[in-house]
Amino acid sequence: MLGKCLDNVRKNVPLVHNITNYVTVNDVANILLACGGSPIMSDEPEDVEDITSICGGLNINIGTLNKSSIEGMYRAGKRAAELGHVILLDPVGAGASKLRTDTAVGLMDAIRFTVIRGNISEIKTLALGSGTTKGVDADVADAVTEETLDGAVNFVKSLAGKTSSIIAVTGAIDLVANAEKCFVIRNGRPEMGKITGTGCQLSGMMTAFVVANPDNQLEAAAAAVCAMGLAGEIGWGNMQEGDGNSTYRNRIIDAVFNMNGTVLDRGAKYEIR
Amino acid sequence: MLGKCLDNVRKNVPLVHNITNYVTVNDVANILLACGGSPIMSDEPEDVEDITSICGGLNINIGTLNKSSIEGMYRAGKRAAELGHVILLDPVGAGASKLRTDTAVGLMDAIRFTVIRGNISEIKTLALGSGTTKGVDADVADAVTEETLDGAVNFVKSLAGKTSSIIAVTGAIDLVANAEKCFVIRNGRPEMGKITGTGCQLSGMMTAFVVANPDNQLEAAAAAVCAMGLAGEIGWGNMQEGDGNSTYRNRIIDAVFNMNGTVLDRGAKYEIR
Amino acid sequence: MLGKCLDNVRKNVPLVHNITNYVTVNDVANILLACGGSPIMSDEPEDVEDITSICGGLNINIGTLNKSSIEGMYRAGKRAAELGHVILLDPVGAGASKLRTDTAVGLMDAIRFTVIRGNISEIKTLALGSGTTKGVDADVADAVTEETLDGAVNFVKSLAGKTSSIIAVTGAIDLVANAEKCFVIRNGRPEMGKITGTGCQLSGMMTAFVVANPDNQLEAAAAAVCAMGLAGEIGWGNMQEGDGNSTYRNRIIDAVFNMNGTVLDRGAKYEIR
Repeated sequence: MLGKCLDNVRKNVPLVHNITNYVTVNDVANILLACGGSPIMSDEPEDVEDITSICGGLNINIGTLNKSSIEGMYRAGKRAAELGHVILLDPVGAGASKLRTDTAVGLMDAIRFTVIRGNISEIKTLALGSGTTKGVDADVADAVTEETLDGAVNFVKSLAGKTSSIIAVTGAIDLVANAEKCFVIRNGRPEMGKITGTGCQLSGMMTAFVVANPDNQLEAAAAAVCAMGLAGEIGWGNMQEGDGNSTYRNRIIDAVFNMNGTVLDRGAKYEIR
Repeated sequence: MLGKCLDNVRKNVPLVHNITNYVTVNDVANILLACGGSPIMSDEPEDVEDITSICGGLNINIGTLNKSSIEGMYRAGKRAAELGHVILLDPVGAGASKLRTDTAVGLMDAIRFTVIRGNISEIKTLALGSGTTKGVDADVADAVTEETLDGAVNFVKSLAGKTSSIIAVTGAIDLVANAEKCFVIRNGRPEMGKITGTGCQLSGMMTAFVVANPDNQLEAAAAAVCAMGLAGEIGWGNMQEGDGNSTYRNRIIDAVFNMNGTVLDRGAKYEIR
Repeated sequence: MLGKCLDNVRKNVPLVHNITNYVTVNDVANILLACGGSPIMSDEPEDVEDITSICGGLNINIGTLNKSSIEGMYRAGKRAAELGHVILLDPVGAGASKLRTDTAVGLMDAIRFTVIRGNISEIKTLALGSGTTKGVDADVADAVTEETLDGAVNFVKSLAGKTSSIIAVTGAIDLVANAEKCFVIRNGRPEMGKITGTGCQLSGMMTAFVVANPDNQLEAAAAAVCAMGLAGEIGWGNMQEGDGNSTYRNRIIDAVFNMNGTVLDRGAKYEIR
């Protein structure tokens, strides 16, 4: 079933508007192309409404926010909402600064997001209004482990209910939930944390997956997480002597490029709770 | 003859000022270095006049324009024009938003560009003042094919005459024309469309080629298109099992790095109309 | 001893705040991860004080400065100084424009930098208040060679004394000095100049090294230079037929990823004057 979600991306070629950080934007564009989507980037407030109107989805990532791009996020988000588009929020660094927390929370007040995707520290910040994020990485104390899994599943389901959004928390174990149902996903490699922007890439790709599967949004979001994790496994298997994190970055995007629904269905490791 | 144009880039090491989008800027810089040029990036209005003054060419790309960088484009363009520098316009997404169309058209009113390079939808937008661009990719209905080639050649020659610019339209078939003469180029691979920014990279490289060949600007622009397409062919030939679009990006820039005039002359596929 | 400095980066995982250019920022983030650090990027004036407060070091690079990010540099720098953090200045293009020179000089007046790292033309500009920089590359006339080495060593020691900063001048021969002691380093490959941003990457990595070695800041800065140069040598040794500058970029970061203190100690080529 998840494999079908990937096949639909390749069939529908969803156009995704990204307001995203300048650190990882090139990789976001290339992974969107790799999975079968089509990326466009625009953050200027006077440009974003036109651009988002011709797209199917909007990916908002606050990784290198500034006053102008924040205004762009609000304007694009409101227009996308009016048009019934898929809208995803990636609250990079929420909890690490007042501006990031306030921006993420403010956007959530103004716009109903189809999906909110972050690490556990960022998502907890959004739920609680405060946080202990260590930069852009999750705090160890927050980690979703086998021991804390039950509580974490309840937490994301509850937040999904409160926000009417799909909540995706990614880490060693990934959770993708609406109010009733939670995918618990165990794909991926710890070495993915040594590449900048695998989370940003996933957010871009997830937006395309959800746009291309309007009747199965939760499954589509889970499929994107499995695809990213599986690409991390395949890419790691293709590493050769002397390769490191920079080549690994390429191999992961390459693995998405070469993935199809059958490969994804065979490699996806998840249970539903 | 086209090979000589590449050799001149390596000999003259033209310094190119780029006001370009943050999505593909790193690849633009690396391909400029690969072909023998030297890149510098600056978009701050108070910085661009000094920077462009020490360069030989200016590459303006509106892919992630904002109010400040638009002002930078005008100020850099006017100074570069006063100094007689080569100036290239890459109207990314013209037709996709009012701001992009207005900016491209406004820049063309204020500055005579040496070269305007885009996909067919963008170039039609500039010619007609309106467009049907689907994001940053060309619309299928606009495509230059063997069937529509005669009309397309006439169109680009006519636009070249009206604008006093070299017009370069890239796609499956590429056209590079002034008012009298059109290079019809058939290098390249369709898979290049699965990499973000091959067009942006070409614009940067083309600026260097035209700067380094002041007496053969049309040939130099055509040589850059052939070099990019040939690099796409060579890079594709070097792809190994498991490679995808991210590695392909590296292999194309690598192929430019290793190309010389003899290789280019042997591999260039073009006719003149 | 230098190897120990690298091992300390991996042990301490220093969080580094980067206000850096959008051209090479992705590579800066990946090399920081490769050496064992953790990167975070933020340039918005209202965000930088919170972000820098949770970090151990601040890397300021003026490569694509704009009015807003310049304000961010001052605010972050002042807060980082109050907190006693390591602060590094990379004055990209100082001497190439009035704005860049003024910004670098102004920052040096307002903030005591732990390290200032640039090419010889940029560093001379800072010392003399004027320059002849050709874009972002060092001017040939300024080059540190075996013939000019004695004078260059005296120059950097003297500037280190005047600024109370470690001065790192990188080129064919690299110099890293405080007022009393200068590391003369001969690692590296000339082909590294064909990759955009090896200097920016080094600045990011050097910040992490200095943060992780508070009692040996000069040695740590020198260790970062040796590590970068050695990675350039190792990466070049891993090049295969058809590889060029884009792949070389990946291989250098990969080599840092795979480097440990023993490898660094064995490969570092330096003398102390």
